[in-house]
Order: sequence, then C-alpha cells, then structure tokens
Amino acid sequence: MRMSDTRDAKTSAAPAANNRPQPANKRKMKIAIDAMGGDHAPAAVIEGTVLAWSHCSADLVVVGDEQAVREALAKIPGGPAPEVVHAPQVIGMDEPGPVAIRRKRDSSLSIAMRMLADGEVDAVVSAGNTSAVVASAKHSVGVFPGLRRPALAVFIPTETGSSLLLDAGAHSQAGAVHLAQSAVLAHIYLKVTKGLEKPRIGLLNIGREPAKGNKIVQRAFSMLGRSGLNFIGNIEPGDIFEGLTDAIICDGFVGNIVLKTYEGISESLFRKLGQKADWSTPEGLREFRPAIEAIRRSYDYQNVGGAPLLGIPKPVVVAHGRSQSTAISSAILATQRMAVDRICARMTEELERDSALADFRYFNALLIFENLKKKWGFTERK
Amino acid sequence: MRMSDTRDAKTSAAPAANNRPQPANKRKMKIAIDAMGGDHAPAAVIEGTVLAWSHCSADLVVVGDEQAVREALAKIPGGPAPEVVHAPQVIGMDEPGPVAIRRKRDSSLSIAMRMLADGEVDAVVSAGNTSAVVASAKHSVGVFPGLRRPALAVFIPTETGSSLLLDAGAHSQAGAVHLAQSAVLAHIYLKVTKGLEKPRIGLLNIGREPAKGNKIVQRAFSMLGRSGLNFIGNIEPGDIFEGLTDAIICDGFVGNIVLKTYEGISESLFRKLGQKADWSTPEGLREFRPAIEAIRRSYDYQNVGGAPLLGIPKPVVVAHGRSQSTAISSAILATQRMAVDRICARMTEELERDSALADFRYFNALLIFENLKKKWGFTERK
Repeated sequence: MRMSDTRDAKTSAAPAANNRPQPANKRKMKIAIDAMGGDHAPAAVIEGTVLAWSHCSADLVVVGDEQAVREALAKIPGGPAPEVVHAPQVIGMDEPGPVAIRRKRDSSLSIAMRMLADGEVDAVVSAGNTSAVVASAKHSVGVFPGLRRPALAVFIPTETGSSLLLDAGAHSQAGAVHLAQSAVLAHIYLKVTKGLEKPRIGLLNIGREPAKGNKIVQRAFSMLGRSGLNFIGNIEPGDIFEGLTDAIICDGFVGNIVLKTYEGISESLFRKLGQKADWSTPEGLREFRPAIEAIRRSYDYQNVGGAPLLGIPKPVVVAHGRSQSTAISSAILATQRMAVDRICARMTEELERDSALADFRYFNALLIFENLKKKWGFTERK
Repeated sequence: MRMSDTRDAKTSAAPAANNRPQPANKRKMKIAIDAMGGDHAPAAVIEGTVLAWSHCSADLVVVGDEQAVREALAKIPGGPAPEVVHAPQVIGMDEPGPVAIRRKRDSSLSIAMRMLADGEVDAVVSAGNTSAVVASAKHSVGVFPGLRRPALAVFIPTETGSSLLLDAGAHSQAGAVHLAQSAVLAHIYLKVTKGLEKPRIGLLNIGREPAKGNKIVQRAFSMLGRSGLNFIGNIEPGDIFEGLTDAIICDGFVGNIVLKTYEGISESLFRKLGQKADWSTPEGLREFRPAIEAIRRSYDYQNVGGAPLLGIPKPVVVAHGRSQSTAISSAILATQRMAVDRICARMTEELERDSALADFRYFNALLIFENLKKKWGFTERK
C-alpha cells in the first residue's frame, strides 16, 4: 500500500491539512465519502476517514446527515475537519437499490454520485447498500459505451498471488452477455493495473467440461471461446486457490457466495486452530505464531480495501458493509490510487482500441440463431 | 462410522464371504455398484468395492464392462469375487445426463438403476456423471409423489457438528418451488436420520434481509415463510460454519460451488500451513501436528462418503467423481447404512403424514397471483 509521508499523520489537525503537497497545474483531487452507508455508519465511516486523512493527498468530502457527521467528528479530539455536505436522506442496507435511488434523491449516496457526475469530486467511496451504489452510479455517471452494466471486482488471495473475481455482487442475476462483458472488463482492468498483456480469463463453473453448468454459463463459454480474450475455459473453485487464472468470471450471486464462503471458512479454520493450540506457550510456538498470523492476513480479503465498480467511467469503490474504520480507511486509500493512476480513463482508452464489447452482442445474436437452427432442424443430425 | 465385525477383514477371500451373518426372514441385501463411473473407473471403484467387502453385510454386485472388471479384480490377489453384471456401454463424465441415458440404455449406470427399479438390488452407488445418475434414477425409479425432482444432500462439517447442504449439484438451475421442495426433503431426512423434530432450515443467500438475492430466492423465501417448516430465514455462507442451521437450501450450481470452494480453500490453507512450518521438528510441534491433522480430517468432506440423492424412493448414493478407493468404500458403507436403516421407506412414510410438498405448489400459485395483482394495480399503493 502506497502511503504519503507518514510524518504528516501527527500534524494532521485541520489548519495544517492544507499544507500537504498537491499536484501542480490542476485543482486538488477530491474524494466523496458516503458517511451514511454501512452497518456501522456513520461512526465507523468517520473514524475511517480520519484514519485515512493523513495518508491521503486528496481532499476528503464527507456526505451525510450534517448533525450526525459533526457529532461523530467531535468524538475524535484533534482530528481533521473535512468538508461536510449535508444529505437529509439515508438509503437503508435492505432497500432494493433501483427503487431506493428513485425515491431518495437527497440521500447521501445520490448526492455523492451527482457530485461525481458533475465533476465536483473525482471519486466516490461507499460501504452502503451495494445494489443502490450500483444503480446510482449507473444512473448518475453512466457506463462505458456498449457495456450493459458494471461489475464489482475483488482480488482473491491465492497461493501464487491473487486473482480478480468479477462480478462480486453488483447484480444477483446475469445473462451470458453480461458474463462475457465482465470478462472484457477484467481483461482491460488487469491490463491497465497489472500490465498483463493477455490475462488468463476463467469462467467459474461446477466442472471443467464445456457442457457443465446451466445454459447461461454454457452460452457464455461459447461466446468467450470465440472472442479474442485469453480464455482458458471453465474453472472450478479449487482452481482459484491454485492460481490457475488471473480473472474469474461469474454472476454476482455466485461471486458473492464464493467470497463469503472464503471468508467464513478461513475465519472458522483459524478460530479452530486457535482453540486447539495455545499459541502463547513458549515451547516452539514462538516461531509458529507469526507464520499463522501471516497466512491469516494473506487470506483476509478485507485487507485489500474496497472493491472497484468496473464499467463506470469514473472511480466508484464499494467497501464491505461490515467495514470497521480500518477497512474504510484502506478503501479510501485504494480509491485515491485508482483516481491518481487514472485507471478509469485508461480503461476507456483501452476499450476504444478494442472491439470486444461490440463483438459479444454479435456473438450472442449468432448463438441464438444457431440454437434456433438446431431446433428447426436446418442442420444435419449427427 | 459403524462397521461390521472387522475380524472378517482378514478372512474375506471369496469362499468365506457367504459365511457372514445375514438378516433372518429375508433374502440378503444387495447393493449395485456402477463400476464404470468416476474419473478413476473402473480400477478405483473395484479397489473400493474390495475394501468395503469385509465391512459390509450386504452382497455387492458390480455392474460394468465384464472384461475390464475381471481384469481389475484379478489385480487384487486374494480379494473377494463379487457378482459381476455385464454392461456393454459407458456414460462419459462430460455427457449431458438426460441425453446420455436415452442413448445408452445398456450403460452400467442404466442397468444398475433398472435392477434397483425391478427390486433385484436394494441400492445403487455411482461415482459417475452426476446429471446422468440423477436423470437415470428419476427415469427408472421415479420420485416421491408430488415432488418435482430429487436433490443431492451433503453434510458440511461446521464448528458445532455438521449441516446438510441441499442441492449439492443434482440440477444446475432451480425455480423457487424446487428450492422450497428441497427444504421439505431436508426437513424429513434430518427428522428420520437425526431424530430432529424441527430441524432449522436456512436459505442460502448473499444477505440476510428478505429482499436480498435474485427473484427466485426471494420467492422461495416467501414460500418457506408460509410453510410449517422451522424456517430461520436467509443465511450467508459464514453462518454455515458457525453452525447456525441444520440444513442449507440452495440450487445445485451454487451448492456445488460452495462445496468446491470449501474443499479448495481448506486444501490450500493446509498446504500453506504445511509449507510455513516444518511439522516434523521436535521442538514443541509434537503436540501440534496431531491437532492440525484432526482439524484437517474434520474439514475434509470426502470422509463422509457419498451423497444420498434425496427424493428417490430407493437408496441412490453419488460418490465424488474424483473418488479414490477409500472414498468409494465409504460411499458403499454409507449406502448400506441407508438401506439397512430403511431411510427412503421412512421418508416416504413421513411425507404421507405431511402436506408440505403439496402446499408449495399452492403457495407458488398464490405468489404468482399476488405479483400479478401488484402489476395490474389491484392493491392500494403505499
């Protein structure tokens, strides 16, 4: 994690904040933070903002109920004084997203997204209701030309490094074209962020054979096979951890289930390991405890900070709903990196050079036609 | 695991086999084994059959290509001589099940299932193509009255014991009624096998709120809420490992992904733990290694043997496609227990006392009507 000068951390009271270095020839970068999103909002979000403050060269703008935000800020003596934008409404964690954003135009989330669309801020971070964040980003900021909808991307730690899981929960249902388009997003994101020329794309399935899984996955398999992507075929969950692929494509329901299974089983295993052995006994475990802790950290996907919402032309990062202050802070820092590195702009440029997105619509039409031909009996039977 | 007299194991050459005790007043129980199913068939299946032989009071009938089976048997000197039924065809692991069983009526699987339907054997075990096993069982043996289709049930080890996951991969797509009917199967199976009067049923979802997930899961949630089952609501994967529920309901695609993620991450974690620490060093790890091994065993779901295909009125058990001989052997022993304990017959009796299956069809009609009413605007708007 890149951090700006940490000596700033001690002197980050409000009046000193403006002395931090800022890019020349342009106004200072601004990141809007949805103060009312998440299970522990606004307290954990405000604490996270304060934590990130000194490591962050961008200005942080807190959007939310002004009184609640000021009260939460007042509880942190000597903390910074970020800009606060008042939002009278709050979108709950269990409201259906598309309905919520239509009904609550003055929610913290909607106001933050409008600020992003209008160029008043350069990025948005929210730990709120994922479906509302997705709907709001799509509605206010839009998506890449030709793309049907955005997808949430999360790096899963594997034995050899990490692998990008897409969609991690932006939409709980997907058609074959959505899956194929997610593969393009993953391809371009990995190209831009990791410099991989031909990232390996795997389609998550319950078996490796092309005939496995449901019809949607089978059709996505055909489409990806015809595309110019480096498609390595179906992969099973076990293959993820062996690091066989750079990106894993699945629908948001399955992706979210995989992430949460990952989280649940690692937590459960480490709890059980902790019960069985007393790590604090002196004999021999001196050396062992740090090893276990290192593995635990590498398997804790929350360390990676928030998940970028790929497909939106400006940086939108979703933090885990259960985020505490440290997770919020790392999400803010990840968002800043994304904005500073111009990831979204570079993805747009890459996409313009690539016809993959348009291809999938053509492939889909082709496949539907081929299926109909089979049904109508135009082709010879084997 | 219950085992018959293990002293038999040493004297289990073919001629002695018939001396084993057998139930009075009825012909000896017979279990058909699909010799040609699985990634390591027929060798691993035959080895597993030989392994199970001495622990098994039932007769084992091996169905498959006679020459291949005899050759595999000949490789185990001093082994038993099970009855062999010749089957000229083999269903591959990657053939679509319903097509395969129609085209290959003389496959080992189809012949074994017909023997089960005709009462020539009392149970079937196969490590073959799951979709073919499911289609064949449904076609030859049928399902419980009122049930739309069977579901594969697997016990997942949790921190407090185990939890039944249903459907673990019988069908890769499911409607709301299928999910709700799986819940009834789980309820009755746990009642019969574990004596639980009101097993807790959870619906696997990406959040706990009723509005989470896709439309199918949301509708299943409504149906289960109206049913007489002990429905505890949506559960997230993390809740499984904490043991919050006795049964987990999901479609076969998601269930299979969860199982394989479970398998993949535990294997990966243990590999990594093994790399970090040298378990064989004398200092202090004497005590630790057995603890790790105990946890590893408890998290290895393959130890549980095969997965019963619930909803079929006779015992059908599916073993993991990758099964080696030990896994086949424990699947055979699990099948014997299922047959001896009359699990399927008792489930049928329970179902006759219960109107839950019929209810779901009614609930489904009701929900569709309610949705239409909303669409047509018959009800007052909030």
